Amino acid sequence: MAKNGQKRSGRKRRQQGVVYLLGFGPGDPELLTLKAWKILRKADVVYYDDLTSADFVRSLPSERIYVGKRRGKCGMPQDQINKLLYQSARLGKTVVRLKGGDPFIFGRGGEELEYLKTRSVRVEVIPGVTAASAAAAAARFPLTQRHVSSSVSFCVGHPEGKIRVPDTETIVYYMGAKNLRNIAREMIDKGWPPHTPLALIANATLPGQKIRIGTLQKMMHTKYRFSQPLIIIVGKVVKP
Amino acid sequence: MAKNGQKRSGRKRRQQGVVYLLGFGPGDPELLTLKAWKILRKADVVYYDDLTSADFVRSLPSERIYVGKRRGKCGMPQDQINKLLYQSARLGKTVVRLKGGDPFIFGRGGEELEYLKTRSVRVEVIPGVTAASAAAAAARFPLTQRHVSSSVSFCVGHPEGKIRVPDTETIVYYMGAKNLRNIAREMIDKGWPPHTPLALIANATLPGQKIRIGTLQKMMHTKYRFSQPLIIIVGKVVKP
Repeated sequence: MAKNGQKRSGRKRRQQGVVYLLGFGPGDPELLTLKAWKILRKADVVYYDDLTSADFVRSLPSERIYVGKRRGKCGMPQDQINKLLYQSARLGKTVVRLKGGDPFIFGRGGEELEYLKTRSVRVEVIPGVTAASAAAAAARFPLTQRHVSSSVSFCVGHPEGKIRVPDTETIVYYMGAKNLRNIAREMIDKGWPPHTPLALIANATLPGQKIRIGTLQKMMHTKYRFSQPLIIIVGKVVKP
Repeated sequence: MAKNGQKRSGRKRRQQGVVYLLGFGPGDPELLTLKAWKILRKADVVYYDDLTSADFVRSLPSERIYVGKRRGKCGMPQDQINKLLYQSARLGKTVVRLKGGDPFIFGRGGEELEYLKTRSVRVEVIPGVTAASAAAAAARFPLTQRHVSSSVSFCVGHPEGKIRVPDTETIVYYMGAKNLRNIAREMIDKGWPPHTPLALIANATLPGQKIRIGTLQKMMHTKYRFSQPLIIIVGKVVKP
């Protein structure tokens, strides 16, 4: 009886489909987790955007659907992505929503999870290496360090309101490439010394990786332009 | 000439050895990155501690050296670990320092990097999935979410001084199992509403995984004991 019951529920689940909110990691496909890799090989359809390697996505055996919405360019609204994920799952498919970094850190994974949960779709969340970890590894500065920094915060560098400057010893800004001067000014206004060191890491782990070390003062007057994805690490953990 | 030069430098590098500060991820070996997995297969010696799976470590083909220093138990001092890493590298070995989570988030990777760098040892840093990402995935709450939380901080839950309560919308405490009441009291003192929701995730991604949802108020009066590793996620992203 139990065995039959298990079989039935197994069949039912396959019919319903499943959505994996899956962290791709920072860019280099080698930084995918083993678990993510296995799920991608068995997926029926993969929804991806600009934060995942196009070459890697092309190599996947599944159907692939681009739902990019890179800032500044016209992209697919979140509502529509939610609906597509739902529709694929309803067809009984194994669906992957591939997300740059970790799905739950600036990834909108929470919104997709909520939408699918309220519609009784089975969702699994596969964590990934977030861009801050990869950028720190690339620049070779820790995000926390004994006697230097026992706290780190992750903030968005393009907020609709004001730039947030939390009172942690290290601050990492995601998506701040177009806002370098504002971020520096806001931090100095909040009392951070102008000579506080910082690292700018563009395209961490990717072929176009660039690392610049500077200070808040220098960043306030910079005319240098960085491409996205950019990670800004500010604090004493950065050693010039 | 150039070719000879390259060969010489190649030989020299092999003689010097290399140390990989390598993120194991939160516990489940499936959450290792592909890169980490490949490096582990070719390592000569692996230094590991309590935050990595003992079964997995036993399965490795390399020499394995335990350097655990779990809090509260007598362990190997950081200085001694640094020296061991250095000595192995000097013997020309491919050395892995395996670290739970990400080597640069509460992992002391920065200290090991600094020690080895000043002694001209080649060091590579391989980022990993940090415990906060894994805990959030397990508990199915995002760490950031549009219109709810645009910032998250990671703090230690067993500081030598006071508990830090940064002004981010989500706060994650690592290593706070023995300090639940102090953390809750400190957050309420700092103005966080007592009914603020929180999630406690013990042994995220491991067989003994436990998840409890509560509030600051409840945590302040809890007699419940959690084992390490424990992650505490506080903020409106947690939905009871």
